[in-house]
Amino acid sequence: MLTKEDVRARIASIVGEQNMLTKQEDLVCYTYNAGGAAPSPHLPILVALPGTAEEVAQMAAFCNANKISIVPRSQGSGLSVNAIPESDYSIIISMQRMNSIVIDPETLTAEVGPGAITADIKKAAAEHGLMYPPDPASFTFSSIGGNVGTDAGGLQCVKYGTTKGYVSGMQVVLASGDIIRCGGKCIKDVTGYNLTQLFTGSEGTLGIITEITLKLIPLPQAKRAIRVAFKEIENAAKAVSAIMTSGVVPSIMEFQEQTLIRAVEDYTHAGLPVDAGAMLLIEVDGDPSTLKPQADVIRRVCEQLGMVDFHVAETPEEAEQLWKARRSGLPALARVAKGRLGGDPAVPINKLAQAVHTLFEVGKKYGIKVSCQGHAGDGNIHPHFFFNSDEEKKTAAKARSEFHYEIIKMGGTVSAEHGVGREKAPYIVKQLGEAQVGAMRAIKKALDPNNILNPGCIFGGEA
Amino acid sequence: MLTKEDVRARIASIVGEQNMLTKQEDLVCYTYNAGGAAPSPHLPILVALPGTAEEVAQMAAFCNANKISIVPRSQGSGLSVNAIPESDYSIIISMQRMNSIVIDPETLTAEVGPGAITADIKKAAAEHGLMYPPDPASFTFSSIGGNVGTDAGGLQCVKYGTTKGYVSGMQVVLASGDIIRCGGKCIKDVTGYNLTQLFTGSEGTLGIITEITLKLIPLPQAKRAIRVAFKEIENAAKAVSAIMTSGVVPSIMEFQEQTLIRAVEDYTHAGLPVDAGAMLLIEVDGDPSTLKPQADVIRRVCEQLGMVDFHVAETPEEAEQLWKARRSGLPALARVAKGRLGGDPAVPINKLAQAVHTLFEVGKKYGIKVSCQGHAGDGNIHPHFFFNSDEEKKTAAKARSEFHYEIIKMGGTVSAEHGVGREKAPYIVKQLGEAQVGAMRAIKKALDPNNILNPGCIFGGEA
Repeated sequence: MLTKEDVRARIASIVGEQNMLTKQEDLVCYTYNAGGAAPSPHLPILVALPGTAEEVAQMAAFCNANKISIVPRSQGSGLSVNAIPESDYSIIISMQRMNSIVIDPETLTAEVGPGAITADIKKAAAEHGLMYPPDPASFTFSSIGGNVGTDAGGLQCVKYGTTKGYVSGMQVVLASGDIIRCGGKCIKDVTGYNLTQLFTGSEGTLGIITEITLKLIPLPQAKRAIRVAFKEIENAAKAVSAIMTSGVVPSIMEFQEQTLIRAVEDYTHAGLPVDAGAMLLIEVDGDPSTLKPQADVIRRVCEQLGMVDFHVAETPEEAEQLWKARRSGLPALARVAKGRLGGDPAVPINKLAQAVHTLFEVGKKYGIKVSCQGHAGDGNIHPHFFFNSDEEKKTAAKARSEFHYEIIKMGGTVSAEHGVGREKAPYIVKQLGEAQVGAMRAIKKALDPNNILNPGCIFGGEA
Repeated sequence: MLTKEDVRARIASIVGEQNMLTKQEDLVCYTYNAGGAAPSPHLPILVALPGTAEEVAQMAAFCNANKISIVPRSQGSGLSVNAIPESDYSIIISMQRMNSIVIDPETLTAEVGPGAITADIKKAAAEHGLMYPPDPASFTFSSIGGNVGTDAGGLQCVKYGTTKGYVSGMQVVLASGDIIRCGGKCIKDVTGYNLTQLFTGSEGTLGIITEITLKLIPLPQAKRAIRVAFKEIENAAKAVSAIMTSGVVPSIMEFQEQTLIRAVEDYTHAGLPVDAGAMLLIEVDGDPSTLKPQADVIRRVCEQLGMVDFHVAETPEEAEQLWKARRSGLPALARVAKGRLGGDPAVPINKLAQAVHTLFEVGKKYGIKVSCQGHAGDGNIHPHFFFNSDEEKKTAAKARSEFHYEIIKMGGTVSAEHGVGREKAPYIVKQLGEAQVGAMRAIKKALDPNNILNPGCIFGGEA
């Protein structure tokens, strides 16, 4: 076994001393992910910041030969503890320097480095009248590599789909150090297995993505924001299903529950309907002439379910005010209690009301305060389990765990968009079954026989 | 090694004598696929027609233990020799009886058996105001299992995407006989690897699909058909790129070259512009008020590229007449020469003109007649290499092979929608590289260690 000094010397010879972090104060930062989870107890040997796929490939081959773990990472903004070292014998490969963005308007694609910030890609595309639709809440600071690694969702996915629908190809460094290029700029391509989609959402456990080809679409011409409030939370959930099956496909359909509405109103003084049990924040987009007809359909559907307020933003400023209420959700919740456990389960859209009902039942059972918001049009709930003490935190964790099992019983999934990471690894056998997890482990072993790539992620400690 | 009689007895005990074919005249039929390729020289031991996933699982476990090959199949309408026995020690599992269709309008999904005919699924969805968009030319007789196995494309994919975009889950029998269920009715789901997308397009080589959950969307409210003719074939190809980047996304954009236009006109007397070098058949859909604006954008783009005819169908009957010209393509071509080799390559959309030009150059070089049509908005060309003798057929095969290599050089793919099958297996290393094909073989071996599932397909004779 090589010493840590040997490892540092070899990696420095690949990426250059100037592109390697080894000071303890730097390394500690890389033991954290977003989301408030505890950091890894393991310091990595180093953080490498490569500039090319070839450098990544040389590091992979070296680490594979010496059984050194690799954690691919860029912004560390994952919410499921996706990218931290599992042991002291690990290196972090940070893709932050590989952040190029090249828009190709002739093929409606973009070639981007995994370290590119998603918001920068959206902006570059918009300069050509094009749109990269996926918009995870983190898009202003998360990287596309992480978005692809977790198949990140977001607000507009209800109409436009998640990240995976926009990944048409990628360059990947395998554990062996081989560089492969899957897919490309062709709109249709069925030559061989769809490795592009296999790597998408694999959270750095099957290969290290070093370049991504993204599909772009024309920017919608116009959009309109709508806020609907309901007295009963379950009617709001029913309205979501009813709207989704009405023929209108909103580009956004967010859901906020009363605790959250009140917290946001306290925080923003935006004039929200604080007596409502829940509200929906909806956007429709498309040709300008279609916006009013779409809004009218939504109004009719909501009227039948006893809405108490229906507000269409008449100006962009008013719409911005409305979206501010959505974005203020998490900061506002910081005032509800000292701490909060979150999550990202989803259910089939006709089970949304049941899932929300179950959340409050579970909260009651464990005697803790709960709330929820979410990308309701996708059946994707973000539950909140609040706590004010270490003791209550343990209770909140138990409540969340029970809620996850209930979600699985409804035909739901414990992760809709954050990835399994380490946080949801305990649930995968329950959701997918032994045989399916066995097939996934077999694939992992086939592509990464020494288990050097992000070990512990998805499968837990003994993949 | 069990005798064929032993195999027949065991399979009969699983599916019942009445659901098993063993007569030579029946078995011979199952050595053929569509597309005019030579049949397999190998007769299967039997054809089993199971009724449940459990029966399929029992057969898989038995075949795996005894190293008997399994060819999953239903309509045999694949065009790349996808589903034929590779050896005498094979059984065919035909999914024809597993053809149930259950539409779930509340979740915008359908649960279907792999043997269900795609047209029947479309019809059942339409009864609920819903749409299953993928429409391979074979959709009136091909099965959804085959469509999923090849990630079939079709006309409307230019706007709605290929089959894979609509597969949200599936039940699969693994080579081991284990039954797994990947994905489901959730719109978003990132728990574990995306096996659903790995099985989609894997042509029966990784598992046997026994049930499929399909995503449905609201039926578009209205549509309009347009025919545009160009003097020069390359201007038509340029118009395709220009339309695709204009902001309008047509729901169909088909391309036909002069040889084909004339053959179709001879056959249908539809009044086609026979002096045009090429024509585009376009459909736009959506809210009724948006159709004229979309058509106007297309007209403006085509005017700049020297169109010689622009015709908008004013009635559904006129539109039907227009689509008849598209569907008559292959039967009409039967009159051009005694035989024809086809294909389904694709290129990035800005290379379409270059690909068409290259096709005619290759035809000239080999002294054979060529033509093409295709799903132009996807960059997907269906080339035709004509022959009138066995000698010319060999020349046509050489020309096609050279064309495939040129497609790869352009960043294209040898298969956009028919699958690799056995026909395109010789090209995959050239297109994907040794390392990528190696990764695919490793996955194949991980999930099917005895190589019993459709051996010979995708990887050629020695997978």
